[in-house]
Amino acid sequence: MALDRLKSVTQHFAGTSPPPHPFDPLSNAEIEAAVAIIGKEHGHLSYNAVTLREPPKKEMLKWLEAPTTTPLPTRVADIVALAPGAKVFDGLVDLNAEKVIKWERMDGVQPLITMEDLQIVEHVVRKDPKVIEQCVISGIPPENMHKVYCDPWTIGYDHRFGSNVRLQQALMYYRPHVDDSQYSFPLDFCPIFDADKQEIIHIDIPDVRRPVNTAKPNNYHAASIEADGGYRTDIKPINITQPEGVSFKIEGRSIDWQNWNVHVGFNYKEGIVLNNITYNDNGTVRPIFYRLSLAEMVVPYGNPEHPHQRKHAFDLGEYGGGYMTNSLALGCDCKGSIHYLDAAFVNRAGQSTTIKNAICIHEEDAGILFKHTDFRDDSVIVTRGRKLVISHIFTAANYEYCVYWIFHQDGTVQLEIKLTGILNTYAMNSGEDTHGWGTEVYPGVNAHNHQHLFCLRIDPNIDGSNNTIFQVDAVQGAGEVGSKENPYGNAFYARKTKYTTVREAVADYNGATSRSWDMANTNKLNPYSHKPVSYKLVSREIPGLLPKEGSLVWKRAGFARHAIHVTKYDDDQILPAGRHVPQTSGEPSRGIPEWIANGDASIDNTDIVLWHTFGITHFPSPEDFPVMPAEPMTLHLRPRNFFLRNPALDVPPSYCSTPSQIAGKQQVFGAADKSSQLAVAVGDVSLCNN
Amino acid sequence: MALDRLKSVTQHFAGTSPPPHPFDPLSNAEIEAAVAIIGKEHGHLSYNAVTLREPPKKEMLKWLEAPTTTPLPTRVADIVALAPGAKVFDGLVDLNAEKVIKWERMDGVQPLITMEDLQIVEHVVRKDPKVIEQCVISGIPPENMHKVYCDPWTIGYDHRFGSNVRLQQALMYYRPHVDDSQYSFPLDFCPIFDADKQEIIHIDIPDVRRPVNTAKPNNYHAASIEADGGYRTDIKPINITQPEGVSFKIEGRSIDWQNWNVHVGFNYKEGIVLNNITYNDNGTVRPIFYRLSLAEMVVPYGNPEHPHQRKHAFDLGEYGGGYMTNSLALGCDCKGSIHYLDAAFVNRAGQSTTIKNAICIHEEDAGILFKHTDFRDDSVIVTRGRKLVISHIFTAANYEYCVYWIFHQDGTVQLEIKLTGILNTYAMNSGEDTHGWGTEVYPGVNAHNHQHLFCLRIDPNIDGSNNTIFQVDAVQGAGEVGSKENPYGNAFYARKTKYTTVREAVADYNGATSRSWDMANTNKLNPYSHKPVSYKLVSREIPGLLPKEGSLVWKRAGFARHAIHVTKYDDDQILPAGRHVPQTSGEPSRGIPEWIANGDASIDNTDIVLWHTFGITHFPSPEDFPVMPAEPMTLHLRPRNFFLRNPALDVPPSYCSTPSQIAGKQQVFGAADKSSQLAVAVGDVSLCNN
Repeated sequence: MALDRLKSVTQHFAGTSPPPHPFDPLSNAEIEAAVAIIGKEHGHLSYNAVTLREPPKKEMLKWLEAPTTTPLPTRVADIVALAPGAKVFDGLVDLNAEKVIKWERMDGVQPLITMEDLQIVEHVVRKDPKVIEQCVISGIPPENMHKVYCDPWTIGYDHRFGSNVRLQQALMYYRPHVDDSQYSFPLDFCPIFDADKQEIIHIDIPDVRRPVNTAKPNNYHAASIEADGGYRTDIKPINITQPEGVSFKIEGRSIDWQNWNVHVGFNYKEGIVLNNITYNDNGTVRPIFYRLSLAEMVVPYGNPEHPHQRKHAFDLGEYGGGYMTNSLALGCDCKGSIHYLDAAFVNRAGQSTTIKNAICIHEEDAGILFKHTDFRDDSVIVTRGRKLVISHIFTAANYEYCVYWIFHQDGTVQLEIKLTGILNTYAMNSGEDTHGWGTEVYPGVNAHNHQHLFCLRIDPNIDGSNNTIFQVDAVQGAGEVGSKENPYGNAFYARKTKYTTVREAVADYNGATSRSWDMANTNKLNPYSHKPVSYKLVSREIPGLLPKEGSLVWKRAGFARHAIHVTKYDDDQILPAGRHVPQTSGEPSRGIPEWIANGDASIDNTDIVLWHTFGITHFPSPEDFPVMPAEPMTLHLRPRNFFLRNPALDVPPSYCSTPSQIAGKQQVFGAADKSSQLAVAVGDVSLCNN
Repeated sequence: MALDRLKSVTQHFAGTSPPPHPFDPLSNAEIEAAVAIIGKEHGHLSYNAVTLREPPKKEMLKWLEAPTTTPLPTRVADIVALAPGAKVFDGLVDLNAEKVIKWERMDGVQPLITMEDLQIVEHVVRKDPKVIEQCVISGIPPENMHKVYCDPWTIGYDHRFGSNVRLQQALMYYRPHVDDSQYSFPLDFCPIFDADKQEIIHIDIPDVRRPVNTAKPNNYHAASIEADGGYRTDIKPINITQPEGVSFKIEGRSIDWQNWNVHVGFNYKEGIVLNNITYNDNGTVRPIFYRLSLAEMVVPYGNPEHPHQRKHAFDLGEYGGGYMTNSLALGCDCKGSIHYLDAAFVNRAGQSTTIKNAICIHEEDAGILFKHTDFRDDSVIVTRGRKLVISHIFTAANYEYCVYWIFHQDGTVQLEIKLTGILNTYAMNSGEDTHGWGTEVYPGVNAHNHQHLFCLRIDPNIDGSNNTIFQVDAVQGAGEVGSKENPYGNAFYARKTKYTTVREAVADYNGATSRSWDMANTNKLNPYSHKPVSYKLVSREIPGLLPKEGSLVWKRAGFARHAIHVTKYDDDQILPAGRHVPQTSGEPSRGIPEWIANGDASIDNTDIVLWHTFGITHFPSPEDFPVMPAEPMTLHLRPRNFFLRNPALDVPPSYCSTPSQIAGKQQVFGAADKSSQLAVAVGDVSLCNN
């Protein structure tokens, strides 16, 4: 099979099969070809990742400019492999030339934990005598060890063990029955797993012991709902159908929809990557974003007791939002006419694997796009909107993240994230004080306070690569009431602060000024407003990083210290907490703190990247348990001074009428009853365009 | 007809027809009955409003407790009437007793401007010689006066004219053709209209003159889109159908849906009023809110030049969100199976009028309600949500407000507002500097900066009337990194500050702490979390009032000075800028500033009202013109420690499987390909509940 795939790659290169788009993720065939090429030189290895090394931007921009006449950028595989003795290798393979172009042994770093890595721990834990001993202390007899479960997390960082030994911490649970939710039965101790030795090397045991919960199970599965009185029966179906199919066209992984064009990539860490987002503005294809992705996240927990400080998962950098992606199924995750894309990965053995239906692409009705009624005669226009949703969902042990990239007809790009799944829980004794660090969401179950802080990487391309970021604050005008410049005291304006250097761009949110940020091309002014063409980042859920300066999280998650960082573009700067995140000590801080070390670097009118950290702080409550209703959060990227007018005016209206049409119908309404008469007139489709 | 209606009211009271629910708005018959009763005593009057005076809360709570055994509260009509000589009367009519129970001449106040009041001004303006003179100066010949239009606004307040003369300011526009959007042709002068005399008493003329725009029209009607290349043709239909009908039941105006029950009222000022919102929690009907409404709003504009300081419309208090409500039409404003409610009002002559389809009630799919996958075996639950939307749309001259009250299955109530319609515009000369107070959105068109500040009135009833408000801030724990209490520096918690007095409750938003507010019943603790049952106000769009302290807007819109005010409940305190808003000077400030005058009043564990001001600051751009794509803003009222668990667990899942079901199918997946196999398994409906 591997040989067949190698052949199919060769066919690509020989031109007998259409070549992949340079932004396309590696195909199964390319993954296996890369492994075969590495294998020839370096023999048998365990593979952690084989993913596309995206082409250098400079080269890629040239190709995008003239794809038919410019040579295709080389296909390069980016490889992370492990060898016995906890050796880690970073490599690059030129798939066109079929050769290894980089091979480097990495010292003191740990690549992310794969799903295969995770799956092993539970089996080891169940057989470990010291774990069994702790289970007995917790009230679980040895014959019930098959009812003991663990969510293996990366260890974060623990100074006792450092970075050279590949470790996981096992958050322990119990299931009275195999179908019971384990999160109602957390255990109080935490074994440390050595991935190289495949054994438990330590167990963290708290001073205060908390035996396994004796409350009855708190389940959400069908049998438990049936036992509690059954499912509600008063929900009538809503059917959403698209009898003529979808409004988008997909060529490879490039989507054309309502003047938008976007290439949908995917990788094991970030999940969905959107490249080369353009808008066809009356025949002119205008670039807007070179690349958009959720590039990192961190979930710090707020309980100060050892070893909970280690709970601060970097779900993308430490586990991979792509690797943890759900296979989506029609009728369950999405409704309507769905187009799916699969995801190809490598497994430990070097074979390619596939997550079917990893990405869902579909349209949704978006309610009213715009409306206006003239109060004089009730002449009216009402136009319904449509949105394109590109989504994936990933499961990070207990939690799920539903990520929706949404394109709107008015030129807006929206990122919506829904948080659902199950709270991480810890044991508590009856009557124990949570000290405010968590909430007893069910008897004996302490759900700790936590934050979800996401880092959105925006590589703007607003009518070209040379862009500038402005901070925009809504502020009062100068002058007190009665002054000459502000006699009535009502003056206010948008104060725009240009970030000229990397240092100036280290910025926090300010709710009081409704702070937003413009990504502008100062070389091009809107002909009407005479302001630079721009896209505005409108984001309102921006808590500060609550772990303190100097804390482990603060050191390791440098990107989360501020809402905004801006860097000059660099092909190597994709992952804001660094390339290999597990077991980084934060000394030095990887990623953004390194990249902003030169605070004087200019970011004015050049190729830049905007890093935006946003999210929520979650203080759990019983309503979030035993499975949490989805909590949405959202942000928008809106065109400002980019278009000459509302770009959606040519969306066919549901209903429209003009004053002369109204008058022509002799419908001169009295003020008293005009509304009633309008309702009648609405039935007259001759007034409707669509 | 009036007699027929009086007869039908009599039938109500005689028991031959079911009596209205005490929260029901006055019916057409009741309105005409009230007018007839007033007429007998006071003769011919012009009517400004005849609306329900809601029953005293104390009495109403008793009735709600035992509706079958408690006498129905009296139906009372609240009346505002005008008589020649600018006399204003406030009255109350007991409809059961058929008598006037209050009749008071009001001095120095002006009731709101009705749609009939608005309609007159344009006709007067077109014939006024001084206005014609100004039009000629602007470049409009006298024979084109039929092409001159105006949006009549309340004058706000102008010290030159005071409060005793009923005035409107006419914002002037021109239409080259009757179907052209006038907002591209603003005129630079502003006539003042005396409603009593029905004449123009003054014209405000700027020092710098700005002749009528000579740019070509900027239209959005069908003919202009066709001329520009036509409508896009690449949108395929999305059909949303409910073949079995809706999932809600309506009895009168009380809606039962997914354990929720709510009474939907409506009045001329606030529009939709939601009363007695309860949730059936496993057989126990628990009260949550006694009353929810958008009670006021103000739209200050930020241009300091005279007379733009007068542009700060109170769209509810000065015009009426109910009076300006659109008649909604299937397929235009809403999709799916719609239930409409009409709205009944009085006209100037004292007849009842009807806006058909004023309120839209419908359901929508709400995407994923919750989901969790066990990474071990891909056992999974995914449940789709549903929402109930109660909406209306009102047109305030140029602007439209789409108001959506949304009920969710997880116990959340959401308020979403979409802003659309057309920017208020002013004339500008070519090359003129906007000084940052506005944006040239089209040549010769200056759209001024403005804010939309809404006041949400929340009358909580969290398991009873005695409630308490807590401010909740996400903050770091005490102790620096290395300290005993916070060794790792990661401690954080929800700091709750109880508002014990009215003074303490005057509060602003704090984005840095993700500030929210709990409406709690401290007399009842959640049995699991031991925290008071509560609903949390989660609101993130909370700009400060930008007009300065002491400015006209600051004085008149006291409610907008702070994000939060809390008052002890009072039947008379509904409208936070006062009962009669037009031409208030702000000296003294009406509404909330009066009600919080006694800062020491206790609001701890008593019957309280929470007033929340939120909104956006809008710096226009060309994308917002000539008609603005809808800009959504939203806030949530979420149950916290109110339920024992996720209240939506009994919503039938789209798909669910348990570990034992997975194992029973012998589907033991290898880590490498389990996801692909899951996709196959999904077709197996035996694993699905629904």
